[in-house]
Amino acid sequence: MHGALMAEEMAQQPDVIANLVERRDEISERVDRVLPPDIAGIVLVARGSSDHAAIYGRYVLQMAARRIVALEAPSLHTLYGVRSRCDGFLAIAVSQSGRTPEIGTVLQRLQQGGARTMAVTNDAASPLGEAADEVVELRAGIENAVPATKTFTAQLAALALIAEAVGDVPWQPNAWSSVPKLMQGVLDDPAPARAAGDVLQEAHGLITVGRGFMFSVALEAALKLKETSHLLAEGYSSADLRHGPVAVIERAFPVLAFTVSGRAAADMVDLVEWLRARRGAYVITIGEGDVDVPIPAGAPEPLAPLVASVRAQQIAREAALRRDLDPDFPEGLTKVTPTT
Amino acid sequence: MHGALMAEEMAQQPDVIANLVERRDEISERVDRVLPPDIAGIVLVARGSSDHAAIYGRYVLQMAARRIVALEAPSLHTLYGVRSRCDGFLAIAVSQSGRTPEIGTVLQRLQQGGARTMAVTNDAASPLGEAADEVVELRAGIENAVPATKTFTAQLAALALIAEAVGDVPWQPNAWSSVPKLMQGVLDDPAPARAAGDVLQEAHGLITVGRGFMFSVALEAALKLKETSHLLAEGYSSADLRHGPVAVIERAFPVLAFTVSGRAAADMVDLVEWLRARRGAYVITIGEGDVDVPIPAGAPEPLAPLVASVRAQQIAREAALRRDLDPDFPEGLTKVTPTT
Repeated sequence: MHGALMAEEMAQQPDVIANLVERRDEISERVDRVLPPDIAGIVLVARGSSDHAAIYGRYVLQMAARRIVALEAPSLHTLYGVRSRCDGFLAIAVSQSGRTPEIGTVLQRLQQGGARTMAVTNDAASPLGEAADEVVELRAGIENAVPATKTFTAQLAALALIAEAVGDVPWQPNAWSSVPKLMQGVLDDPAPARAAGDVLQEAHGLITVGRGFMFSVALEAALKLKETSHLLAEGYSSADLRHGPVAVIERAFPVLAFTVSGRAAADMVDLVEWLRARRGAYVITIGEGDVDVPIPAGAPEPLAPLVASVRAQQIAREAALRRDLDPDFPEGLTKVTPTT
Repeated sequence: MHGALMAEEMAQQPDVIANLVERRDEISERVDRVLPPDIAGIVLVARGSSDHAAIYGRYVLQMAARRIVALEAPSLHTLYGVRSRCDGFLAIAVSQSGRTPEIGTVLQRLQQGGARTMAVTNDAASPLGEAADEVVELRAGIENAVPATKTFTAQLAALALIAEAVGDVPWQPNAWSSVPKLMQGVLDDPAPARAAGDVLQEAHGLITVGRGFMFSVALEAALKLKETSHLLAEGYSSADLRHGPVAVIERAFPVLAFTVSGRAAADMVDLVEWLRARRGAYVITIGEGDVDVPIPAGAPEPLAPLVASVRAQQIAREAALRRDLDPDFPEGLTKVTPTT
């Protein structure tokens, strides 16, 4: 059956996240061992879905470390051989397989420049895992569907747990206990995602939008829709969308808007109203409360992306099925992308 | 006439760049005054087109400073009030008008955290210019068309000149002398851009792609096409495109590929061949040598984005005219975007 693997792996997410949270002490010890004593900054290295997890990681890590967090451009190292001094930096590489050559190369270059290094990966025995000073293994289990689902949410959780070990974070430790249940709530209620998938059946393209913590989910939703449904979907923060790209939104143009509660909510509500009233957009809202595709309320804003990501995966999978495509095996894609 | 303002401002670019290069000593003195003695890193702050210039700036500045260069997420400051310690960092804000409130807010927060600050803007008397320790004024003149053209290339040049003052760069100082002439060569030869515009007349969407230094131009080309032609255009690095998004490229799907010479060339040539042979994409190549839309050869790879950007502007303007739109005033957009 088309999409069976993706559905199976999506269904494992509450357990994968619960298991990671149970390993909080182990993760904290690994962070303690690798964290530079007077940390100058943090630099993240990733591509694809993992890069979207890194964008989330940037928020939680900058809040916790109270230091600048950078996302490294791999080609600076792999094409141009830049040598950067990065004493006092913690470099964190995020890679599902640990086998994308360029990610390993960049982490090693940063290590040579003086950074302490950590890998967040599903496979501690991978070249990336072997190269890093410390590894946070996701233990999400083998992922057979090409679109990353459980490894993506596991990466978000791992980065949030790393942030907890780095410093103060804007959520209570016990907030985690509800997260697997909220994710399960989404899995048990697929009807709203199906309705959204129906809307996208005939679409030529769409824009996804979120802000703050939810920006990473908007990016990941767009990537999942591209991979599974071959829909040109571009993810934006609400602020960047206003800086020009909004010009493409004409009457009935579909927009997926992540309008979760919290500090980013007001800006998102404003944007959605404006897109509907002034541009005639077909906005599908995803969030807590009175929206088109609800997610169960209860997660603090910084952890809500874990729950919203499951909704995004569901919508992408449903849209692919409506478009008569197999979301498990998008044509021309492979699980490990050998970019250098 | 539709597009007259944009054409007029595009035509000013060779002079704007030549004037900036003539101010090299002034820019160098400003950098000397603001550069922290033992620099820990650099952080860039921008939105929209200016953010694409900042992505270019990240490459040239990281090469010159041999330190990590970050692009700051504004919402960390404006929504979440993060307090980051950034002693030893140079923070550079890039903003055409200097009047986008969030950019000024973020620069001030970084200043409060210990960073030295610099603004790259068209208006030193703007709130952003007033707030920064030093200003590199672009002096591009008033820009009346909504899509940024001359301010964008002026931002690229300013960031490259700042990089020269920061440290060793991978081009010779006299390489600049040819850049205005190469830009003029593009302006004097609009026919290839018109042909590309014809191809995009009926398109539903497209992907733009570049790598390394040229990644910023791919992003800017996509934004210009969205603003002027209401085409859903998404910009990618060739590496990121392979990580999933390539799934949207089906038979005859248009791709604008920036295949300039240099270290990024081999990867781009591989990608273009693969897109044509395996996906049946309609690839329009832009670069030096045997391509669909040529740019005159002669700029070193790190400065070629200035020349390629003019081609991208031309294509966006021509596509808009073919689509019966006025590229000067995209509906619903304003020159200063008041995001907070």
